[in-house]
Amino acid sequence: MNFSILTEVLLNNLLIAQKALSTRTPAPYLQGIKLEVYPKKIVMITSNSDISIKLSIKDESLEVQSTGDILIPGKFFVDIVRKLDSEKIKLSTIENNVLRIEAGNSDVTLNLLNVEDYPELEFVLNDNPIKLDSKVMKSIIRQTTFATSAIENRPILTGVNIRVEGEKLVAIATDSFRLSQKVIDIPKNFENMNVVIPGRSLDELFKILELNLDEILIHLDHKSILFEYGNVLFQSRLLDGNFPETSRLIPVEFPIIIKFNKHDLFEAIDRASLLSQKDGSTSIVKLQLRSDSQVEITSNSPEIGKVIEELFPLEKAIGIPIKIAFSSKYFMDALKTFNSDDVYVKFTGEIRPFVIEGDEDPGLIQLILPVRTE
Amino acid sequence: MNFSILTEVLLNNLLIAQKALSTRTPAPYLQGIKLEVYPKKIVMITSNSDISIKLSIKDESLEVQSTGDILIPGKFFVDIVRKLDSEKIKLSTIENNVLRIEAGNSDVTLNLLNVEDYPELEFVLNDNPIKLDSKVMKSIIRQTTFATSAIENRPILTGVNIRVEGEKLVAIATDSFRLSQKVIDIPKNFENMNVVIPGRSLDELFKILELNLDEILIHLDHKSILFEYGNVLFQSRLLDGNFPETSRLIPVEFPIIIKFNKHDLFEAIDRASLLSQKDGSTSIVKLQLRSDSQVEITSNSPEIGKVIEELFPLEKAIGIPIKIAFSSKYFMDALKTFNSDDVYVKFTGEIRPFVIEGDEDPGLIQLILPVRTE
Repeated sequence: MNFSILTEVLLNNLLIAQKALSTRTPAPYLQGIKLEVYPKKIVMITSNSDISIKLSIKDESLEVQSTGDILIPGKFFVDIVRKLDSEKIKLSTIENNVLRIEAGNSDVTLNLLNVEDYPELEFVLNDNPIKLDSKVMKSIIRQTTFATSAIENRPILTGVNIRVEGEKLVAIATDSFRLSQKVIDIPKNFENMNVVIPGRSLDELFKILELNLDEILIHLDHKSILFEYGNVLFQSRLLDGNFPETSRLIPVEFPIIIKFNKHDLFEAIDRASLLSQKDGSTSIVKLQLRSDSQVEITSNSPEIGKVIEELFPLEKAIGIPIKIAFSSKYFMDALKTFNSDDVYVKFTGEIRPFVIEGDEDPGLIQLILPVRTE
Repeated sequence: MNFSILTEVLLNNLLIAQKALSTRTPAPYLQGIKLEVYPKKIVMITSNSDISIKLSIKDESLEVQSTGDILIPGKFFVDIVRKLDSEKIKLSTIENNVLRIEAGNSDVTLNLLNVEDYPELEFVLNDNPIKLDSKVMKSIIRQTTFATSAIENRPILTGVNIRVEGEKLVAIATDSFRLSQKVIDIPKNFENMNVVIPGRSLDELFKILELNLDEILIHLDHKSILFEYGNVLFQSRLLDGNFPETSRLIPVEFPIIIKFNKHDLFEAIDRASLLSQKDGSTSIVKLQLRSDSQVEITSNSPEIGKVIEELFPLEKAIGIPIKIAFSSKYFMDALKTFNSDDVYVKFTGEIRPFVIEGDEDPGLIQLILPVRTE
């Protein structure tokens, strides 16, 4: 094969493809980028244990002299192309399975991997993908994946549960101490689905969504999920097993509701967390609704000192005085997901889960389990 | 003690003082910030095994109700003040050696350390300090400390040798594989000096110099060095022992001189280093002056591939063809220290040290030892 293209075009696509590159793998071919050169386009394929990416590159600058398939050591290739400073780059295979890269005054040769070793990957498209504004897809990821479990003892909780239920698409993540749920409206004509996607896959997809294209198509099947985004096909494996039924965990009635300025609440908890008692690596902070309707955020670390933060709810709080303790990190993580300037914190009791909602975040619920103290 | 001050003023000074804070130390008092409150100023003192810092704070916003000395747990205090968002902060001691911090709606109490445990530190000023433009001081640090040794088997090489010799101030650093030397002119009336300052101390001083005040005073003594910079006194310990005599290491005659565009040379070496042979963790790259007066930068890693970079010297090179191998990191580190757009690389032979100089960097020499190959 032999072709030339604008260096910038090649690089921008490589930076996407490398997100599915394996760095350490028992299968050396998964450290490779497969390049398929056709008369009028090139295709780039990468794959690791979680995700596979396929990019079709058609560009005015592409000039193909001869076609063919090669498998390039991924990390070295990306590093080199990233550092080239010439406008155009020419790639050609020379003797003995060697790639020659010519760009400006640089002349690089790179030993290729054996392209016959590369597995045939199936990218599963269907006829009726769900179309989303890519900003909505980004917010789903940003508002849920952080709440997945980082520990592998219940693998299903390392994923985000995606359900299609009638005219709703529901995304849920939980590590069993907190839960994030985002519901968005979709048209009616989709089959109901219930799958679990590794949180890590969604984190990688999020980075690709920084390209800020308008829309994304979700090709969802009981056994696979594939995101189509511009010239990118991004496919993730699904997690086996049943995601826990979480709907009964979320209280429906809240006798105590307090409205806060999100920024002030965040800052108060952040300051209190500095001198808080630790439960393992968790900083425990307390929120108290006083009988005079003011709120105190407090922490106390007997050896070091204590913090008292006084907060003024935006409206007179509803309900009776309450004192509740929680992980400051979980609370701050949850607050960060809201676009709303003001948030409602809703309680059912001192040892019951509480939720956070915001006017400008329809469909979003953050739930946190309190910590028992004393 | 009891005083109030603008939070921003306190914080800006704390961020300087914390550079001499010990985080892990067998002496808990060195984790503290000593605060001396006088009727019209406060003094902040911190110290670790390398450096001691003393800050005198006089500010219009300072209102002292009562004087006294306290020793505050440094890390917690800095963390708290950094996160306060009110304009003013009030500090007062309450019962049982406890500090109360009031700022906006925050009310923090912090258990103090015992101020009697804090050692008396001597900050040694002399009558005839050397006055430097603080930009010059920054460039001395930036152009030399990177070449100090990171390993401790010859402790003296972890420092920068500062000499006052007549009307010259000379700064030299070497890890025995490379050497950086910066010479600047100073007035005549200083006693000759020869001291070695830990590179780490200078790195911390560099961060403080980011304040971009006009000038810095160096109080140099055979046993101590103290930098006076605005309201900051920054004192460093000196390293014991004799710094090696390096003047004979620097060749004086160069039969081969090649002039390069610094940026192009840097980029070519950077690209070549990607596929270079490793000598331990060192990437070895070769520079060849060909008989047609062109230059090639090359690397070769048999298992992976090779790079050939062609470079065009800015003027016809002086001297005979030469091929020399070196650590790409050392060469790039050295190039980064030059302000000049163009640099001269000067050789005496294939296995002799070579030097880099630049027209716009008077007094600066970077010397590198080549690597033997084959």
